[in-house]
Amino acid sequence: MSNLVCTLQVDLGDRAYPIYIGSDLISNPEFYAQHIKGSRVMVVSNTTVAPLYLEQLKKALVDFNVSEVILPDGEEFKTLDVLNQIYTALLENRFDRTCTLIALGGGVVGDMTGYAAASYQRGVNFIQVPTTLLSQVDSSVGGKTGVNHPLGKNMIGAFHQPQAVIADTLTLNTLPDRELSAGMAEVIKYGLINDADFFEWLEEHMEALMARDLVLLAEAIRRSCADKAQIVAADEKESGQRALLNLGHTFGHAIETGMGYGKWLHGEAVGAGMAMAADMSCRLGWIDDNKVNKINDLLKRASLPASPPESMSGDDFMGLMSVDKKVLDGKMRLVLMKDIGHSIISDDFDPAALKATLGA
Amino acid sequence: MSNLVCTLQVDLGDRAYPIYIGSDLISNPEFYAQHIKGSRVMVVSNTTVAPLYLEQLKKALVDFNVSEVILPDGEEFKTLDVLNQIYTALLENRFDRTCTLIALGGGVVGDMTGYAAASYQRGVNFIQVPTTLLSQVDSSVGGKTGVNHPLGKNMIGAFHQPQAVIADTLTLNTLPDRELSAGMAEVIKYGLINDADFFEWLEEHMEALMARDLVLLAEAIRRSCADKAQIVAADEKESGQRALLNLGHTFGHAIETGMGYGKWLHGEAVGAGMAMAADMSCRLGWIDDNKVNKINDLLKRASLPASPPESMSGDDFMGLMSVDKKVLDGKMRLVLMKDIGHSIISDDFDPAALKATLGA
Repeated sequence: MSNLVCTLQVDLGDRAYPIYIGSDLISNPEFYAQHIKGSRVMVVSNTTVAPLYLEQLKKALVDFNVSEVILPDGEEFKTLDVLNQIYTALLENRFDRTCTLIALGGGVVGDMTGYAAASYQRGVNFIQVPTTLLSQVDSSVGGKTGVNHPLGKNMIGAFHQPQAVIADTLTLNTLPDRELSAGMAEVIKYGLINDADFFEWLEEHMEALMARDLVLLAEAIRRSCADKAQIVAADEKESGQRALLNLGHTFGHAIETGMGYGKWLHGEAVGAGMAMAADMSCRLGWIDDNKVNKINDLLKRASLPASPPESMSGDDFMGLMSVDKKVLDGKMRLVLMKDIGHSIISDDFDPAALKATLGA
Repeated sequence: MSNLVCTLQVDLGDRAYPIYIGSDLISNPEFYAQHIKGSRVMVVSNTTVAPLYLEQLKKALVDFNVSEVILPDGEEFKTLDVLNQIYTALLENRFDRTCTLIALGGGVVGDMTGYAAASYQRGVNFIQVPTTLLSQVDSSVGGKTGVNHPLGKNMIGAFHQPQAVIADTLTLNTLPDRELSAGMAEVIKYGLINDADFFEWLEEHMEALMARDLVLLAEAIRRSCADKAQIVAADEKESGQRALLNLGHTFGHAIETGMGYGKWLHGEAVGAGMAMAADMSCRLGWIDDNKVNKINDLLKRASLPASPPESMSGDDFMGLMSVDKKVLDGKMRLVLMKDIGHSIISDDFDPAALKATLGA
């Protein structure tokens, strides 16, 4: 019995689309039919998610002619070659421009399916069915799609909005604990950026969220998507305030690279990165110890690291972030905090505070 | 000494851009500088065109930091793998989102460079410098970019408008005769679709055009681009009238496939295809013999075939065009002529006329 908790309307670019959030939505035809214009549907999933949810999804699509392509699971398969498998499946099945692609999986499946939809015959429709907390709060809004290149992540892609996003909280019951935490890092991020009330709400409910209370998770997803939509709407071209979404990410990317990709999950690195941003903001006198502790406590309650990996030295961070060069060029911009719920983008800070945070 | 004959402003999608048409434009900085926002430029060309024009182009770009990538020449290299060579060159040279790509070559180089620009970091700027008549009249307008898939031509792509098109008629002096004729097929097409005055003008000047009178060629390019822009503007989403641009193409594709790709040039097949469309329109009683003869004469004066290849039978055509099946399903739509300068899209015709035209 579907339990639709809410529908969030996203109004970006030249089109609006709904995000349906609730439990047991995947197999319910009503969330799909109005967003599929032709008769033919290609479901793209991966070897981990398809065995869990593909049959459920197909129940919702009995009125359509459905094909499927199952990709290998993992960021290392987010490549042009694997993307080409989607094109091949579409062409072998003679899909024309009126078809609809459905992404069933996490961020990698969503990004690749969205990009296949953006580029197949110069653009077809697609629907996102994100099955991880990270993809439910992060990929649902913003229209970014694409694949990696051996020389850089997400270097090939397009902006392409889905017809609809169906975020089924029930899928979170099969999500590994580490991935739930990793997704929660991005949820906490929205509180820290510009939503102090949400941060407080998360402080109240973190144990219940981590215990997978689906109603509370739906509310966390809704609030995160709404916050992201607001930031993106204010800056669609990604020149200014949208960079706030990178809170914790500059430090986090250094951790991901320093540890070797895949060792720490992206969300784990972002968690530690947000703790580092808080630490540095405190050293600059922008927030006090009390707030740093509140942030670190919430991260820990979400089973996230609240400090950088011990194996990385200050010099490691300095090198990976090109600190010396960037500070010299005046190009070192970081997302820092003036308060919980008030992050800013700044290149005007004492480099000594940065070095102290990095332990250099 | 540059001789700018005209500037045609194309006002499609969310942006307008100019097509500069004239002789000796390639090496003139004034046509580039205002359309390049950053300092870094990647020129994409192929092994045939680069030796002829790359150094000239670089003269126009002395104020910029220029890199280049030279692709193999030919439709068979219009693939994802070769596209990836462009991405790799951009990433190896650390090009960011402010870069500009310049396509120096014919349709394949233009389509691939445009698509690389559409997809690199989700979209960067590009400038077209088409060096064939076909690409000057056809690829300059419409924003179609993309690559082929082994299972279908142009199946992967995007709509992406250039910042500017620089159509230098001097480059036509090095164009092989057959390719000049092939480009002229598309020029004649615009007269046949909706521009009877232009058709008459072509009748007056065909020998001079084929002798590469650069001033007349510039006028033919201008008129073709203007006609195409008008049709595309009326139907940006390609649902209706834009299909008029396929005059001669349904028959032509059957010829290209039947003969094996590359045996007949695309423009040659379109030339024969237009003659077949005229023949069928005559059999339907829509145009008279006199007009068919005028069309065939003009095609012949452009050294184009005015009839299908002798080696292809009526049954070959019937099979390649799925005539029986499509007629049965009511899905056989063809671009036919009510007059010179008045083509229409029709699925309402006597199949006997089609069969007679095919010799079936």
